[in-house]
Amino acid sequence: MRAVHILTRIPGLGASVQQLMPAVTVVDHSASVEEESMKPLEQFAGLAEAEVLLADPDLAAQVINKLPKLQWLQCTWAGVDRIMDSVAERPAARITRFGGAFGPAMAEYVIGQIIARERNFELMREQQKKVYWWQAPFRSYRLLSTLSIGILGTGDIGKEIARICKLFGMKVWAMVRTIPTERKEYIDEYRTNDGLAEILSACDYICSVLPNTVETRGLLNGTLLKNCMPKKAVFINVGRGSVICTDDLLTALKEGWIAAAILDVFEREPLPGDCELWRLPNVVLTPHVASMSMSWQVSDVFANNYERFTADEPLRYLVDWEKKY
Amino acid sequence: MRAVHILTRIPGLGASVQQLMPAVTVVDHSASVEEESMKPLEQFAGLAEAEVLLADPDLAAQVINKLPKLQWLQCTWAGVDRIMDSVAERPAARITRFGGAFGPAMAEYVIGQIIARERNFELMREQQKKVYWWQAPFRSYRLLSTLSIGILGTGDIGKEIARICKLFGMKVWAMVRTIPTERKEYIDEYRTNDGLAEILSACDYICSVLPNTVETRGLLNGTLLKNCMPKKAVFINVGRGSVICTDDLLTALKEGWIAAAILDVFEREPLPGDCELWRLPNVVLTPHVASMSMSWQVSDVFANNYERFTADEPLRYLVDWEKKY
Repeated sequence: MRAVHILTRIPGLGASVQQLMPAVTVVDHSASVEEESMKPLEQFAGLAEAEVLLADPDLAAQVINKLPKLQWLQCTWAGVDRIMDSVAERPAARITRFGGAFGPAMAEYVIGQIIARERNFELMREQQKKVYWWQAPFRSYRLLSTLSIGILGTGDIGKEIARICKLFGMKVWAMVRTIPTERKEYIDEYRTNDGLAEILSACDYICSVLPNTVETRGLLNGTLLKNCMPKKAVFINVGRGSVICTDDLLTALKEGWIAAAILDVFEREPLPGDCELWRLPNVVLTPHVASMSMSWQVSDVFANNYERFTADEPLRYLVDWEKKY
Repeated sequence: MRAVHILTRIPGLGASVQQLMPAVTVVDHSASVEEESMKPLEQFAGLAEAEVLLADPDLAAQVINKLPKLQWLQCTWAGVDRIMDSVAERPAARITRFGGAFGPAMAEYVIGQIIARERNFELMREQQKKVYWWQAPFRSYRLLSTLSIGILGTGDIGKEIARICKLFGMKVWAMVRTIPTERKEYIDEYRTNDGLAEILSACDYICSVLPNTVETRGLLNGTLLKNCMPKKAVFINVGRGSVICTDDLLTALKEGWIAAAILDVFEREPLPGDCELWRLPNVVLTPHVASMSMSWQVSDVFANNYERFTADEPLRYLVDWEKKY
C-alpha cells in the first residue's frame, strides 16, 4: 500500500484520512506548511518520495513537477487552474479534482443570498440595532416563484443550484456547451454560448459557476452585461473571477446595466484593498467561501479514489489537461 | 351584484379588486383610514350599508358588530385573533381568512434566515465594510442536510416550510393535532402535543407557525425550552407571539437552553422599545414581515370567494368560531 502524502490547510484532513484508512501510512506535511512557510515545499522531509499526494491546488502547483515519483495528485478543491497556470510542462502524474460535494453548499449560499437580498435582511438587522419597528420597507417583495435565474455552467454544482431554484418555483435558464438530448426537469430553457445575450436579457439573476478555462476567461467582458438591462439582473459569481475583468464589472455596476453583484470570487484573490468593489453600495462581497472543502468530504472522495488507484481502475474526477478542468 | 366595501392598509388593494372584478361596485374606505383616523370607522360614509366587507382584521374588529347588514367579511390576513379577542358577541356575518398564499413567503423567510445564520452572512458583510479578507470564520459550516427542524403547526404554511426544508435534505419533525393516516413524504417524524418535549430535544431548529388560540397560548411557557438543550436549538417564531411569554423566552435565551431566536412575532406588537429582546446578541428580530398580504394575492382569494358567495357555494378559508381560527 502506497503512503499518502498530504499538503493542505484544511483543518483535520490528515486525521480524517487516517481514520478512514487505518492501514495506510499517512505522511501529513500540513503543519510544516504553516511553520516553514519560507522553505520550498519540495524540501519538506520525505515529500520527494511521494507517489500519492493529497493537496490543496495552490500548494500542489509549487511541487508537482519536482516530485519525480509522483503518480497521482488528488486535489482538495474543484478548481485546478492554479496548477494549470503555474506549471510550464504537463505533469506526468494524473490529477483528480475534488468533486461531487460542492453542489449543496453552493446552492445554499446562492439561494440564501437571493432571499437575503429580496427580503432585505440587512435593513431588518439595521432597524433592530436602532430599536426601530417599521414594516413599510418590507411590505412588498418579490417571491422567488416570480423570478428567473440564468445559470452559466451546469456541471454538478450548476445542476444542484438549478434544482434548488426550481423547487422554489423560479424559471431556470442554463448555458451549456451542447443542448442535451435528455433535458432536466429543473431546467426550463437551454442555450449554448450563442444564446448568452438572450439569457442575460431574460433573467432576474445571473449566476456563474464557470471554471477558469480558455473558453470562459473574459466571457462576460466588454459591454456584454448591457444585455442585462431589461431585467436589471443581479450578477452572482461563485465560479471563477476570470469570467469578467474587474474594470468591466465595475462599469456594468456603475452604469446600471446590472442592479447589483454578489461576488465570492475575483480576478485577484485576496481582492486588493484598493479595489472599488469593496465599497460599491450594490456589491455584496464574500472571501471565496461559498463552498469550502471540508475534511470529511475530501477524505471520502480521496478514499474512494485510492481504492480505484490501488485496483488500477479509472479514477473519478480526472482532470483533462486539454480541456483545462 | 353586491357592492364590495374595503377597509385596508394594503397599498393598491382596491384597484386590484376593481381590475379583477370590473362589473362589481367597489367602495374603498381605505383612504379614510389614514385621513380620518380619529373618527369611528362605522361612521365612514356608506360603510353602514356594507353587506360584503374586505378588511384588515384589526380594522374589521372595530366595526364587525356595528354593521347591521353585513353578511360576509373576507379578512386580508391569516390571523383573525384580533377579531376574536375584541368582540364580545359572535358576529352574525360569516368570516373568511386570507389563506393559501403565505406558505411560499414564510418558507423563503425561514430557509433564508437559517442559511444566513449557518453561513454567517452578517459577519461577511461586516468584513466587507472593514475591507477585510479573512476566510477562517467561514471555513466550516453545517450543511442543511445535516440539520433537523421541528415545525409546530402544519397547516398550509407549516407544510410548505416542511417541504422546502426536506428539499434541502433536513430531517423534518412535525407537531400535529392528530397523526395523519396518510403521511407526507416531506415529514419524517410526526408527534402530537404529548411528544413536544421529544421534538424540542431532537431538533437543531424549532419553528412555530402556530396561530393564537386557547390551545397554543403559552404552549412553550415555563421551563419547557430546557428540552432544547441537547441540540442547542434555534427557536424561530413566525406564527404568533402568544405561544411563549416574553419573560420565559428571555430566560431560555439567557440560560442557554436555546442557542438563539429568530423572531417575527411578539406578545405585544409593535414590540415595546424597552424589551430586552431588541438587544440580546443571539436574537434576530423582524417587525412581523415574514409574510405580507400582497394586493394581487388578496384580490385573487377574494374574487374566488366572491363568486362562491354569489353562487351560494361554501366559502374557502371559513373561520370556525369555536376553534378560533
